[in-house]
Amino acid sequence: MYKIFIVTIVLLAVQLSYAQDSIKYADATTLMMVGKAKTTDSIYQRIDSVEAKEMPQAVKNLAKQSAGIAILFETNSRIIRAKWDLPKEVYLHNMTPDAHSGLDLYCFKAGKWQFVSIGRVAPGINQNQIIVQNMDSSLKQFMLYLPLYNGVSQLQIGVQQNATINKPTKPAVNTARRIVVYGSSVVQGASASRAGMAYPAILQRRTGFDWINLGFSGSAKMEMPLAKYLATVPADCYVLDCIPNPSPEEISERSYPFIKYLHEQQPAIPIVLVETIFRQNGLWDQQVGNTVKRQNEEIRKTYERLKKEGVKNIYYLETDKLIGNDHEATIDGIHLTDLGFTRMADAVLPVVKKALAEKK
Amino acid sequence: MYKIFIVTIVLLAVQLSYAQDSIKYADATTLMMVGKAKTTDSIYQRIDSVEAKEMPQAVKNLAKQSAGIAILFETNSRIIRAKWDLPKEVYLHNMTPDAHSGLDLYCFKAGKWQFVSIGRVAPGINQNQIIVQNMDSSLKQFMLYLPLYNGVSQLQIGVQQNATINKPTKPAVNTARRIVVYGSSVVQGASASRAGMAYPAILQRRTGFDWINLGFSGSAKMEMPLAKYLATVPADCYVLDCIPNPSPEEISERSYPFIKYLHEQQPAIPIVLVETIFRQNGLWDQQVGNTVKRQNEEIRKTYERLKKEGVKNIYYLETDKLIGNDHEATIDGIHLTDLGFTRMADAVLPVVKKALAEKK
Repeated sequence: MYKIFIVTIVLLAVQLSYAQDSIKYADATTLMMVGKAKTTDSIYQRIDSVEAKEMPQAVKNLAKQSAGIAILFETNSRIIRAKWDLPKEVYLHNMTPDAHSGLDLYCFKAGKWQFVSIGRVAPGINQNQIIVQNMDSSLKQFMLYLPLYNGVSQLQIGVQQNATINKPTKPAVNTARRIVVYGSSVVQGASASRAGMAYPAILQRRTGFDWINLGFSGSAKMEMPLAKYLATVPADCYVLDCIPNPSPEEISERSYPFIKYLHEQQPAIPIVLVETIFRQNGLWDQQVGNTVKRQNEEIRKTYERLKKEGVKNIYYLETDKLIGNDHEATIDGIHLTDLGFTRMADAVLPVVKKALAEKK
Repeated sequence: MYKIFIVTIVLLAVQLSYAQDSIKYADATTLMMVGKAKTTDSIYQRIDSVEAKEMPQAVKNLAKQSAGIAILFETNSRIIRAKWDLPKEVYLHNMTPDAHSGLDLYCFKAGKWQFVSIGRVAPGINQNQIIVQNMDSSLKQFMLYLPLYNGVSQLQIGVQQNATINKPTKPAVNTARRIVVYGSSVVQGASASRAGMAYPAILQRRTGFDWINLGFSGSAKMEMPLAKYLATVPADCYVLDCIPNPSPEEISERSYPFIKYLHEQQPAIPIVLVETIFRQNGLWDQQVGNTVKRQNEEIRKTYERLKKEGVKNIYYLETDKLIGNDHEATIDGIHLTDLGFTRMADAVLPVVKKALAEKK
């Protein structure tokens, strides 16, 4: 009698653990997607290939990386897994594999987005990880950020066999409110520790608006095809954080026609100009320091010219307001860490809020 | 005549640029070293092989990693290069190559340590990089942190041929004032963006004292050979941040004899006990959350037992004081980013200061 009881208990335990561990997968394309400028031919890329046609090759390539894109879903599963394939293996001296190729999971809890865990990255291109397990089985809304400096060729989200997984009924990101950020590696998210710590992602969670990451590492050089594209992206505000990449001469030549065009096409949409962060190694390398100074002088000139011409809804954020003054906000003098991105988010948010508040 | 003038100018310019680019190397062993518990048989490791004999194998291996060790030197060179060899290539999903295998350079300027730049890491084991160039040629004191999660088999620091490079005449780290930190991966520096952002390194710069990094990733489990070793390390204060690794049962069993022994051997040296940071994924994973809670309950019991026995110079730092409450301080729920380490440094410093102030 006692033996039968024990055997029954063991069998029940096995069955329960099987029920927990038996996983079904939902293709992420069936769920909700945020952080996209527009729909694209290949779903996990940032700019449609046809629309990217006139852009520089470097931008075309970087537009295939999934920075800023996230999947929203609702599930009551006690476990969340993911299988995702990377188009290629990436090595970056100044980024963690989890940031350039991993997944980053948040949950909407008591009116706020809270970090849950990550989909960590093993060497190779086929990734398959438990993100979190042993949760309670209440229905929760999750946001899963995609890799910052790599692409995703396919993504499936795994939950318990008997759990539900769906698009959220009340999405906690309002895709009708859109902040479009065009910029360099700093926008794309180098060197956040994980995808959710790039500053547009931080601000997406803080505001509940949809922040669109159009950061193109080393390649945000204000070519006209980019202005033309930006003018077609639905936006409540443009943030132009594209001063780190072009030379002072390029800024002098390109920034006025670029911004002028964007403003003429979309006169009602405010534009926030952000000076380049002061490269911290430029406080020692006199050539670097001089270049940064001249970059900011050139964008300042363009800003003042536009103001003089009567453009009202243009805002300006100076370098000394961006990342604090302890010189500890970067990994390499150039790229922000989570400490730097938190400061950057603190600096950008009030200016964007002001721009939105003053919008007619 | 004009032609000769031009030729002379060109020749002079070539010679000058040659003088700038022509580099001589100083072996780092001829300079000053900080962050070392004691001298060791192999100079870039943390614990002497003979002294490590009774320690667990994992600790022995990790003691060969150079976390917390830094080279101090003075030079008037306009350029600083480094050639360093790594014993092996490392892959860590949650650390940048620059952190686990790179170099991190600071300069003492106007009474403060200021970040200069890094020795970034290329794939492979033989590294050779310009760290900074185009500086002014004033005499400066530098500190170069070694890799956090790798070793160094040799290191040479390159300066201009005509520059000086020496041990600093007035070292800005006081090696007679020593804080010895024993702990887990959090102490060793996962997941700082670079070596200087591990919290013992941050506090070394803030205090000017020598902070000794005895962080052993995953392996700070309070075995008695570690207590015996710690008791022989010259210290003004011990910080025991070793609760993340042992199980609640191990803490219950080991923490009292470990701390009791250390205190009996060194009754005048204050001990700061640090609870484990609350694993942020443990706010979701109920098993993880429960374990963390029990770990901290067990160390608390030991602390209270020692206080009851009349041990006065023992201090206690609670988990909710360590890394803020926005849940954004980690890369993976477990390991701190620069944001987390900055908060951790803010939390640990006042307790250590209090301990030092109350020391008889």
